[in-house]
Amino acid sequence: MKTEIVEKRKVRLKNGVLLTGLPGIGLIGQVVGRYLVEELGTKKVANLYSHHFPHQVFMTKKGSMRLIKNSIYEYKSPGAELLILVGDVQAMSSVGQYEVADQILEYAKKAGIGTIVTVGGYSTGKISEERRVFAVATHKDLAASFKKRGVIFGEAKGSIVGIAGLLPALGKLRGLKGICLMGETHGGYVDTVSARNIVKLLSDYFGIPIDLKRIDQRAKESEKMLKKIEEEIQKSMVVPYEAPKGVSYIR
Amino acid sequence: MKTEIVEKRKVRLKNGVLLTGLPGIGLIGQVVGRYLVEELGTKKVANLYSHHFPHQVFMTKKGSMRLIKNSIYEYKSPGAELLILVGDVQAMSSVGQYEVADQILEYAKKAGIGTIVTVGGYSTGKISEERRVFAVATHKDLAASFKKRGVIFGEAKGSIVGIAGLLPALGKLRGLKGICLMGETHGGYVDTVSARNIVKLLSDYFGIPIDLKRIDQRAKESEKMLKKIEEEIQKSMVVPYEAPKGVSYIR
Amino acid sequence: MKTEIVEKRKVRLKNGVLLTGLPGIGLIGQVVGRYLVEELGTKKVANLYSHHFPHQVFMTKKGSMRLIKNSIYEYKSPGAELLILVGDVQAMSSVGQYEVADQILEYAKKAGIGTIVTVGGYSTGKISEERRVFAVATHKDLAASFKKRGVIFGEAKGSIVGIAGLLPALGKLRGLKGICLMGETHGGYVDTVSARNIVKLLSDYFGIPIDLKRIDQRAKESEKMLKKIEEEIQKSMVVPYEAPKGVSYIR
Amino acid sequence: MKTEIVEKRKVRLKNGVLLTGLPGIGLIGQVVGRYLVEELGTKKVANLYSHHFPHQVFMTKKGSMRLIKNSIYEYKSPGAELLILVGDVQAMSSVGQYEVADQILEYAKKAGIGTIVTVGGYSTGKISEERRVFAVATHKDLAASFKKRGVIFGEAKGSIVGIAGLLPALGKLRGLKGICLMGETHGGYVDTVSARNIVKLLSDYFGIPIDLKRIDQRAKESEKMLKKIEEEIQKSMVVPYEAPKGVSYIR
Repeated sequence: MKTEIVEKRKVRLKNGVLLTGLPGIGLIGQVVGRYLVEELGTKKVANLYSHHFPHQVFMTKKGSMRLIKNSIYEYKSPGAELLILVGDVQAMSSVGQYEVADQILEYAKKAGIGTIVTVGGYSTGKISEERRVFAVATHKDLAASFKKRGVIFGEAKGSIVGIAGLLPALGKLRGLKGICLMGETHGGYVDTVSARNIVKLLSDYFGIPIDLKRIDQRAKESEKMLKKIEEEIQKSMVVPYEAPKGVSYIR
Repeated sequence: MKTEIVEKRKVRLKNGVLLTGLPGIGLIGQVVGRYLVEELGTKKVANLYSHHFPHQVFMTKKGSMRLIKNSIYEYKSPGAELLILVGDVQAMSSVGQYEVADQILEYAKKAGIGTIVTVGGYSTGKISEERRVFAVATHKDLAASFKKRGVIFGEAKGSIVGIAGLLPALGKLRGLKGICLMGETHGGYVDTVSARNIVKLLSDYFGIPIDLKRIDQRAKESEKMLKKIEEEIQKSMVVPYEAPKGVSYIR
Repeated sequence: MKTEIVEKRKVRLKNGVLLTGLPGIGLIGQVVGRYLVEELGTKKVANLYSHHFPHQVFMTKKGSMRLIKNSIYEYKSPGAELLILVGDVQAMSSVGQYEVADQILEYAKKAGIGTIVTVGGYSTGKISEERRVFAVATHKDLAASFKKRGVIFGEAKGSIVGIAGLLPALGKLRGLKGICLMGETHGGYVDTVSARNIVKLLSDYFGIPIDLKRIDQRAKESEKMLKKIEEEIQKSMVVPYEAPKGVSYIR
Repeated sequence: MKTEIVEKRKVRLKNGVLLTGLPGIGLIGQVVGRYLVEELGTKKVANLYSHHFPHQVFMTKKGSMRLIKNSIYEYKSPGAELLILVGDVQAMSSVGQYEVADQILEYAKKAGIGTIVTVGGYSTGKISEERRVFAVATHKDLAASFKKRGVIFGEAKGSIVGIAGLLPALGKLRGLKGICLMGETHGGYVDTVSARNIVKLLSDYFGIPIDLKRIDQRAKESEKMLKKIEEEIQKSMVVPYEAPKGVSYIR
């Protein structure tokens, strides 16, 4: 076994979009990906297994088991053709990351994907009121269409680690357009508020009605907890670990 | 050389069972596997070598040497067709674990295996009187047939590390049924008592008469030693290392 | 994806020289390589991508992104046919280093390269006025032509780590001539003075007019800073880290 | 590039012996191998390069450079047909060790090798007067012929790490006979005395006249130095590091 995408059903889109939400900074990608998969009534079309994932198997509550994997779900509406990639992990080595990205791109090309949108976090080391969305894109027209909706280009600095960067950058070599959306976040906590903003952005961008009730609720709770953490920190006057500013490690 | 199964004799079963007992938590798998191989009068049918095993060679008492390896033994009775996989080690990396599992499954398919039963330990961090048997299975009917004999499904939590989890989970992708039996154990000691229970369970399940005398003797001695360890610990009031509860690392 | 050289334009030279300047000791190779690429009005002919490079993507100031890579630039004058290899990184493992070197050599053979000149640093652990150029070469005639210009052979000791050593040594097995030029340097700082000397040497050797103004300016600033560092060290009487003398780790 | 044996001259023996002396415990293998290569007037027939060796190149005193490698030398007398494998290093990972061993065996089979004799050290953690020679062998007749000359079988315990164990053990799977000779040694020092004994043994065994003058001289000097070390240790009453007794790590 190597890295392998096992299809449950063949997908052939005309000009589809591949959206990825995998574990990384602030778990923003994973939270966004899973929320869309649940709220949009998607259907699973493929599983991705890899010898670069941990050699572990999860036990389920019902007494069954399953391999560690990534999965691809399909959503279709009159205006949008989406494949959404979510999963437990990213590959554990550089060789593995490139191999997995390569397999996904091969699959995407066959499935008729024209654009790749990856979601991650951009860590600032601060808990800020505002949660801006930063991005880098491979093509100007793609960037322009997101700029209109308030996404900020040219401010995020440093490098993007993992699939969120590799997929659009490698995709460009194969003729695909790509963008990496990064939700502003502290970096040390799961950030549902930042994830919620990106869900809203994607809902608007693709013209897909997504019910935000559940994630709004979770974002409020998360925000309360973060405020408490901040107050505790200021009371104790202990300086918290600061993630390096302006450098984005998405993984 | 890669991972390679060298056959001493071709095996063609109708609906065989592959049983694995390799080193892992509490050495339960290894103790069970070796006991069955010895007590059942099995015959070796294949050796498995891998470049993912340590680059070492064992010296024998007779002045010879042998490679680190896994071996497969055959047992046949009117009611049961078993292949038993035992060995010195498991592969040392994730890539190696998947490769070895893959080679075993390919061999198993050719040999006519329909079901995979792996044996491991489930660490609780406690030395408890009771030694329950937990399990996860890929198919409900397989689970049901073990439930009848007191095996507990749906209580074990976390992940299974190594071949004990990979074989049944990867096997399912190839149309095989699979179950992982986990003997309850502290996790920090070799647990012959828990291994003994699983030997008994397998003897009943497969309708194979297995003489338990030798393992009963060893289990008694092991139990005495564990009790002494426990008393020492309580006297000294030093808290021993506690393996994480409810998480099973089988390796 | 493995290691791959993506050509923008086919290059066919008669007896070309491949010059490499990648990150290593004192960043001398990288500084030399980039200066030549900029000053000589070269044209990019190929990019090299590898799964042995970090799984990261750089964000650009303009809001775009790019893969970590090495690049090859072409320079042609009546007297010289040069390919110049520069880049962000070297491969991260031994297996990766050999794979990347092998791909470069295959490309070089096809492109008509006859000689390989790699540039690196030779760390002495001292900040010395003088910045000699040491070298080792695969063929005597190649060595002789550099000796005439003051390059020192037979004094550098130890081993050369990375592409600066592998390329000429592996190239020899394929019938290419090769030399590794090493600028004398402390080893703990970027050394523009030493890099400047090698730029001058290459300008003379290849009979290529290279404007040294920019690098002279940077060398002066760098030298001032190093002198200050030295004075501070002597004032504080704290012994600085000394790189092992006579051993060259080019990486 | 992978692991590759580059032949300078084809070798076709009738029933040759492959003797290996690579770096390991007490450097005994390397000292024996190099001494034989020098004293016997051997000729180099092949070089072995591998991407599992360090990505380094050695600089030579004459201002040249060379890859890290293993080399094979041929010695022929009316009574003996020997290939001697010596080199700078062993492969750095388990996967690499198996790959290199495999390439050597393939070469050996083609060259007409029937027997493999590897040389290593057996560390006892003591500096003892006596330097016995321990061994393990794949075949009884081979063992018997060495027993006659005082080599001890069945006493060495534990495992042999690296090529000294892998070659004979993997060779057996391919129909070759093999023995690993281990010179008794402390384990923490280069042991020329123990190496000298094995040179003498091989000289007798193969009926090859080997001049022992040079190694006798070095052994005397080495013995003096070891005695001094021992005296110093006993004076200072500091307990030296003791290598684990009865376990042989040859590498």
